[in-house]
Amino acid sequence: MTAHEIRLEPLTREAFAQYGDVLEATGTPDMVINAGKCFRFHDLARLDFLAEDGRAGISIFRSEARVLPYSLNLMERHPLGSQAFAPMTEDPFLVIVAPDNGGRPGTPRAFLSRTLQGVNYLCNTWHGVLAPLTDDAAFIVVDRIGVEENLEEFYFDTPYLIVE
Amino acid sequence: MTAHEIRLEPLTREAFAQYGDVLEATGTPDMVINAGKCFRFHDLARLDFLAEDGRAGISIFRSEARVLPYSLNLMERHPLGSQAFAPMTEDPFLVIVAPDNGGRPGTPRAFLSRTLQGVNYLCNTWHGVLAPLTDDAAFIVVDRIGVEENLEEFYFDTPYLIVE
Repeated sequence: MTAHEIRLEPLTREAFAQYGDVLEATGTPDMVINAGKCFRFHDLARLDFLAEDGRAGISIFRSEARVLPYSLNLMERHPLGSQAFAPMTEDPFLVIVAPDNGGRPGTPRAFLSRTLQGVNYLCNTWHGVLAPLTDDAAFIVVDRIGVEENLEEFYFDTPYLIVE
Repeated sequence: MTAHEIRLEPLTREAFAQYGDVLEATGTPDMVINAGKCFRFHDLARLDFLAEDGRAGISIFRSEARVLPYSLNLMERHPLGSQAFAPMTEDPFLVIVAPDNGGRPGTPRAFLSRTLQGVNYLCNTWHGVLAPLTDDAAFIVVDRIGVEENLEEFYFDTPYLIVE
């Protein structure tokens, strides 16, 4: 069976809003601090960690690079918390999400980040695994720390093919 | 009066531990995920946001570059929360901290970050303002969101001079 192709879209706040938040410092800063030398873009993410005694944590993920076209056979979601990713390098990464369709991912959408963009996936949002392009990369991750099971995975019978 | 000189130290977890956490992906990963393609370095920071109904937030700071030697005339601390900074670029930044000495900063220490390092300042720890070197830079910031006053500043009569 031929894989369904999904074309990359630019990552914008508007297009991504139903799945999460784009972490970027664009537009007018919310505060100017440090004698005018620093601009604060304030409280950019809808964080959600506190279910069943969870708490916020900062971790780092180091991931192998992927290439396009990218075969998407797995998506996952975290029923107890949001999960944010911000690259510590300037290379782009793939941001793949899907609406829920009766407990499994519906048709995915694939976004390509620009330099200085991160994302925060809303609690329980289907998303692809971390997929930096260009080179292996490290990401700051802000997600829920807790002991309860917080991972649901779904494998597609036929992979989608993410293309430029 | 001649400024006291403070020499830069490398930023290591051990040297920095009393002031906060170094966010870096070194040593053995805590978890291997995504079919072996991704390493999780788990829960790296001692976060503290919840005093008086505070919560965790993700912001971005964009800061002008500084140069060495760097004149340090101001330090600040946040009595109600920790504050983490992770660069979204690969350039180093200055990490300046001081022990508390009766309500004012004692003698500062200045650390120079390496690529792929961030820091988390412990709650109420004296620190310098964000100071990227090389070029203007954007940083992911994880700190307390809340309405209470959470900033204390201290100006030195005689600046310290941070040197290589």
